[in-house]
Amino acid sequence: MLLKVINPNTTASMTATIERSARAVAGPGTRLEVVSNPMGPASIESHYDEALSVPGLLAEIQAGERAGVAGYVVACFGDPGLDAARELATAPVLGIAQAAMHAASMLGRGFSVVTTLGRTVGRAHDLALSYGFERVCLGVHACEIPVLELETDPDAFATIVESCRAAMLSDGCDAIVLGCAGMADLCARISDAVGVPVVDGVSAAVVMVEALARMGLRGASTGEFARPPGKPYTGLLSGFELPGDPVRF
Amino acid sequence: MLLKVINPNTTASMTATIERSARAVAGPGTRLEVVSNPMGPASIESHYDEALSVPGLLAEIQAGERAGVAGYVVACFGDPGLDAARELATAPVLGIAQAAMHAASMLGRGFSVVTTLGRTVGRAHDLALSYGFERVCLGVHACEIPVLELETDPDAFATIVESCRAAMLSDGCDAIVLGCAGMADLCARISDAVGVPVVDGVSAAVVMVEALARMGLRGASTGEFARPPGKPYTGLLSGFELPGDPVRF
Amino acid sequence: MLLKVINPNTTASMTATIERSARAVAGPGTRLEVVSNPMGPASIESHYDEALSVPGLLAEIQAGERAGVAGYVVACFGDPGLDAARELATAPVLGIAQAAMHAASMLGRGFSVVTTLGRTVGRAHDLALSYGFERVCLGVHACEIPVLELETDPDAFATIVESCRAAMLSDGCDAIVLGCAGMADLCARISDAVGVPVVDGVSAAVVMVEALARMGLRGASTGEFARPPGKPYTGLLSGFELPGDPVRF
Amino acid sequence: MLLKVINPNTTASMTATIERSARAVAGPGTRLEVVSNPMGPASIESHYDEALSVPGLLAEIQAGERAGVAGYVVACFGDPGLDAARELATAPVLGIAQAAMHAASMLGRGFSVVTTLGRTVGRAHDLALSYGFERVCLGVHACEIPVLELETDPDAFATIVESCRAAMLSDGCDAIVLGCAGMADLCARISDAVGVPVVDGVSAAVVMVEALARMGLRGASTGEFARPPGKPYTGLLSGFELPGDPVRF
Amino acid sequence: MLLKVINPNTTASMTATIERSARAVAGPGTRLEVVSNPMGPASIESHYDEALSVPGLLAEIQAGERAGVAGYVVACFGDPGLDAARELATAPVLGIAQAAMHAASMLGRGFSVVTTLGRTVGRAHDLALSYGFERVCLGVHACEIPVLELETDPDAFATIVESCRAAMLSDGCDAIVLGCAGMADLCARISDAVGVPVVDGVSAAVVMVEALARMGLRGASTGEFARPPGKPYTGLLSGFELPGDPVRF
Amino acid sequence: MLLKVINPNTTASMTATIERSARAVAGPGTRLEVVSNPMGPASIESHYDEALSVPGLLAEIQAGERAGVAGYVVACFGDPGLDAARELATAPVLGIAQAAMHAASMLGRGFSVVTTLGRTVGRAHDLALSYGFERVCLGVHACEIPVLELETDPDAFATIVESCRAAMLSDGCDAIVLGCAGMADLCARISDAVGVPVVDGVSAAVVMVEALARMGLRGASTGEFARPPGKPYTGLLSGFELPGDPVRF
Repeated sequence: MLLKVINPNTTASMTATIERSARAVAGPGTRLEVVSNPMGPASIESHYDEALSVPGLLAEIQAGERAGVAGYVVACFGDPGLDAARELATAPVLGIAQAAMHAASMLGRGFSVVTTLGRTVGRAHDLALSYGFERVCLGVHACEIPVLELETDPDAFATIVESCRAAMLSDGCDAIVLGCAGMADLCARISDAVGVPVVDGVSAAVVMVEALARMGLRGASTGEFARPPGKPYTGLLSGFELPGDPVRF
Repeated sequence: MLLKVINPNTTASMTATIERSARAVAGPGTRLEVVSNPMGPASIESHYDEALSVPGLLAEIQAGERAGVAGYVVACFGDPGLDAARELATAPVLGIAQAAMHAASMLGRGFSVVTTLGRTVGRAHDLALSYGFERVCLGVHACEIPVLELETDPDAFATIVESCRAAMLSDGCDAIVLGCAGMADLCARISDAVGVPVVDGVSAAVVMVEALARMGLRGASTGEFARPPGKPYTGLLSGFELPGDPVRF
Repeated sequence: MLLKVINPNTTASMTATIERSARAVAGPGTRLEVVSNPMGPASIESHYDEALSVPGLLAEIQAGERAGVAGYVVACFGDPGLDAARELATAPVLGIAQAAMHAASMLGRGFSVVTTLGRTVGRAHDLALSYGFERVCLGVHACEIPVLELETDPDAFATIVESCRAAMLSDGCDAIVLGCAGMADLCARISDAVGVPVVDGVSAAVVMVEALARMGLRGASTGEFARPPGKPYTGLLSGFELPGDPVRF
Repeated sequence: MLLKVINPNTTASMTATIERSARAVAGPGTRLEVVSNPMGPASIESHYDEALSVPGLLAEIQAGERAGVAGYVVACFGDPGLDAARELATAPVLGIAQAAMHAASMLGRGFSVVTTLGRTVGRAHDLALSYGFERVCLGVHACEIPVLELETDPDAFATIVESCRAAMLSDGCDAIVLGCAGMADLCARISDAVGVPVVDGVSAAVVMVEALARMGLRGASTGEFARPPGKPYTGLLSGFELPGDPVRF
Repeated sequence: MLLKVINPNTTASMTATIERSARAVAGPGTRLEVVSNPMGPASIESHYDEALSVPGLLAEIQAGERAGVAGYVVACFGDPGLDAARELATAPVLGIAQAAMHAASMLGRGFSVVTTLGRTVGRAHDLALSYGFERVCLGVHACEIPVLELETDPDAFATIVESCRAAMLSDGCDAIVLGCAGMADLCARISDAVGVPVVDGVSAAVVMVEALARMGLRGASTGEFARPPGKPYTGLLSGFELPGDPVRF
Repeated sequence: MLLKVINPNTTASMTATIERSARAVAGPGTRLEVVSNPMGPASIESHYDEALSVPGLLAEIQAGERAGVAGYVVACFGDPGLDAARELATAPVLGIAQAAMHAASMLGRGFSVVTTLGRTVGRAHDLALSYGFERVCLGVHACEIPVLELETDPDAFATIVESCRAAMLSDGCDAIVLGCAGMADLCARISDAVGVPVVDGVSAAVVMVEALARMGLRGASTGEFARPPGKPYTGLLSGFELPGDPVRF
């Protein structure tokens, strides 16, 4: 079973972090392909970054279809391009926010999200609403560490733990969801420190998409999620698809 | 990794059906213990049946704790006793309605449930609301086959397929959730017949609880889901726990 | 008109408290039968306690049916077994959380609940959601007095009043709902102390079920709330119904 | 205990119908004052009618305060002027839609409303949302009989029963709420005809406000529902209050 | 294009404030008629005030219909009588709370309301729910300045700014909505002081109803919002309509 | 006042249709710039099309910022890239679905959407939920005419009218929202045919953003909607911004 994990940003060291998390939880018979976005932003910290990450992400989904991928993970907590990816993919596609929120909601009554910059809090609320977790997601808290500094800031661990504790106190949550793929390496240590289950979205998405694939489930492929109708594309993006691309124009 | 699947009713043939579904999807390193309820109703088709299935179910959870179980599945679509089971268990506990609804919601915009008797429709709506799927669950449809006749009614397959098609037409759903553990054997054939993904809750719960366990996640164990406070129990149920029981009174 | 009030726990002194509250508000022509649970926990402070209180509670409902009861009150704030009780009863069945929340919502814009242990807060939120009061219930606050210590703790009154005041300050509520049948005796004094209406669930349920009965209303008896289908029961609980029981297996 | 039932329209024969319903359910020690609106429309079938019924209704509330009323019923299914009435009254005030919806929601999972003209359907939905019953109110159906023709149309009973049956079929409701005080006389016969509980709002409001009064509960009297601040009133309505009026300007 | 702005209270100086705000934003070809309520309260600070403002307001709508008005603004933040006004008017009718909430919701993720007296907070929440902004309206805050003192209190500006800042801190809002027509004059200064967009409802309603009229849109005129059925009116209000009134009885 | 209307697809004839609608409603002093997307799909009929339309749309927003635009319209009913556009723009940005839904909700109790292909129905529901109109949007109906055939299909008008009538019958809506910018030309004729207000999103967005600009309102520019943090962009899209671009990397 081949799973493909796509880091929607272009930073290789963060893709490496994601890969470590993915490999740590993947089942014995599962092969993993973990890739960076071939085009787009170095990190995703705004709606703008997110929007510009999507074309490259979709190109990777299309490449995955040609490779027979059985399940995809979109490894950015904004779950960029998920609906479009589902149209292209025959296999299930999970975002890491989606998977983490599902997992956390199975562990207790409610979870809180601890994310990077305050400006991404709104997106997390949007996703919680969209997935049905507006009552289960008890709060979204920013630790105000930029994505790429998670790897370099020596205080990152302490700051995140502090945010988790503040979330537990104010929200009374049963579990914490980490709001960035770049926090994956810290997950176990944070959980030990705070005493409630802490969910890393990369791990959650890998095991959940593997679970769906093991059941033989594919994504919906009729109606809204049927293949997009073919049509002419103009300008910069018109040529970026590879030959043999199933959505060729 | 030991997973325990509990059939909350007492019918051995249905437990066998559940076991087949569970074994078909469990990962290579996973051991499964699949048991019937030691006390309770032959099938669960009412709130009354559900209520009386819970004490035996909880006894099985407690036995599981002593055996080091890493994840539990409650294999009845009413998800009976889930909150109480979570208090007793240190490992995650999933109901099959819960797991199936989560899985189906990951496949598209909305799912419909096809269940057994019309009188159980309300419970399915309650669960959808409770898990956050009131918008994603587009409808609940009864095929009016009693639980134990799923095994014997020669028209069961055709009747369920007809209900699925009616649900697809009226609800525009992307996926179908089967509303009874007793339908597990039919899942693949139904999916072939109706052309959208069909989710069996037993399979979904097994792969999802395995996924949670693989991530090292335990259920919440503080606050609402801490061990229940010990206290005297009187009457018929007071003696049903085994010696050494972790909730001893 | 005969009303039956069932204390789902087994503690006689608490049943006596409940009986005093019930008698204080029952109308002139109303006869009251107030009983303890014949089997189950000494108090209900967890989902586990609640689940194990239900079989005995249902036995009392069935006994009530044979006695021609015109309305039932389930006198525990978790409203245990309500749906199952409704299947068995031809008369209306009210839980005290349900009745108190209805009553309080008729007095102003929003109420807060002051309950016993923090671990029961989640259940109160579940009930509020289930009854439609998720917007009207402005908060649930725990005073952290265990149920059975309400009778003995000399500071109980002061502690509850303090919790009420904290709730009024943080929630801006127009009324307070007391979240435990064991607080019934204190209701009038608390109301005097805090200056907003304070609702005791036992009183509310008695007058409301009497109101329904006076209108000649019975509970729904078709579809979901029709009598449960008869079937074999095995094990400990299989024999606990009395001969002549209308749900005989 | 003195309860005051106010018909917000000016039609005496409808007030007589309301009075019959009220007297049929009021408890032994309860005195009833049932009055027509001293000013306003002959029937209430629009937002316009409703708005113009309110000043006279509020004058009756103020007169009631001087008479020591222990509970008020506003006997029009649009629940006109309820919030303003609550500001003036120290005793609880219930609208008949409010009371009927509360009562019906206690009998089963969901109710449908059968009302008079289609143009009033929106108001019923507004009230259901406002009281928390947007999920419990499964549908609102108009029988298209104008309010005052309920008394004279020989087909009224048959037409309403037909609407009830259509509602039961399309909504799967457990109970029916009659959407007009003018239907009160027909309630028992309709219930017999359709086989599910049918709730008349006048009866429901009388028994429920009596229930609240028996518990010693008053409406909220602080914050939003404190007495309105006194101030000059100009024009036609400025003089309509009686001398001694507690809201004198 | 003739727009009519109705101040539902009777205070001429407040009507002058409203007129200044309206004229400051109205388009070049737009004529404005700005009137006080001919009957009713000097200010609207309670449900009672609001209810008694409606008859005069509706008389002004009816006069407007005879004058060929293309759009109406109801210039009180409680949006009194809006549904009734819509029945009478063929042109669109907007309340200033409605318009301000719509405008503010177009500027960012969420807004907070800063209003006058605490007792009006509940009404603002009701309106937000009714218009669909229960998630977008992040909070309602009272500055506790009575309506008519907005004009005379030398500290009004500072007090409102303080409330805005408190709202921004506690709610994290992107915009502020001013909760009283009497605050219109202060809008620009407040916006400068607090650094987020501040929306005055009078301005918002004028430009939005002008926008609707420019599109050639009329209000709904069928079903719920068709002309009210004619019928006898009795008592004080029966004679207050002018001869030639389109809703004559 | 300069408003910029951006057609997110690349089809010039559709941009011309949009321009006609926009010019027909723009106020006297308003200048309009109406542009096609410089890169992207010929029409937008899938999440995939929508995702790939966003980079070009954002480039047009950035060009607009340099030109001093006072308000933007995104003229595709999927409202693509709205949040990202708001981050880049200092002026308000409205999508045509957003504006049409707001306008329609001001005309009555509820509206229905009539859109092009069935596969876009889900997106319309998402937007309605996101803007707060999940209760006000009573249904979304597809006429199954592809976007670009709206201009050429001789039956387009009749087919859309038929869908509108079906929507009115099933949903009881007070107004219709047209779910595609390509339907703008037909709006007046459809409204005449169906007898309820019909809202074209292009017109609605132009008059509404003009209204916001006339009030001097800018979009939120702090927190979530502050300028995106600058960072390296790699690959195909990294060079598409013009020199002097305010989001330069």
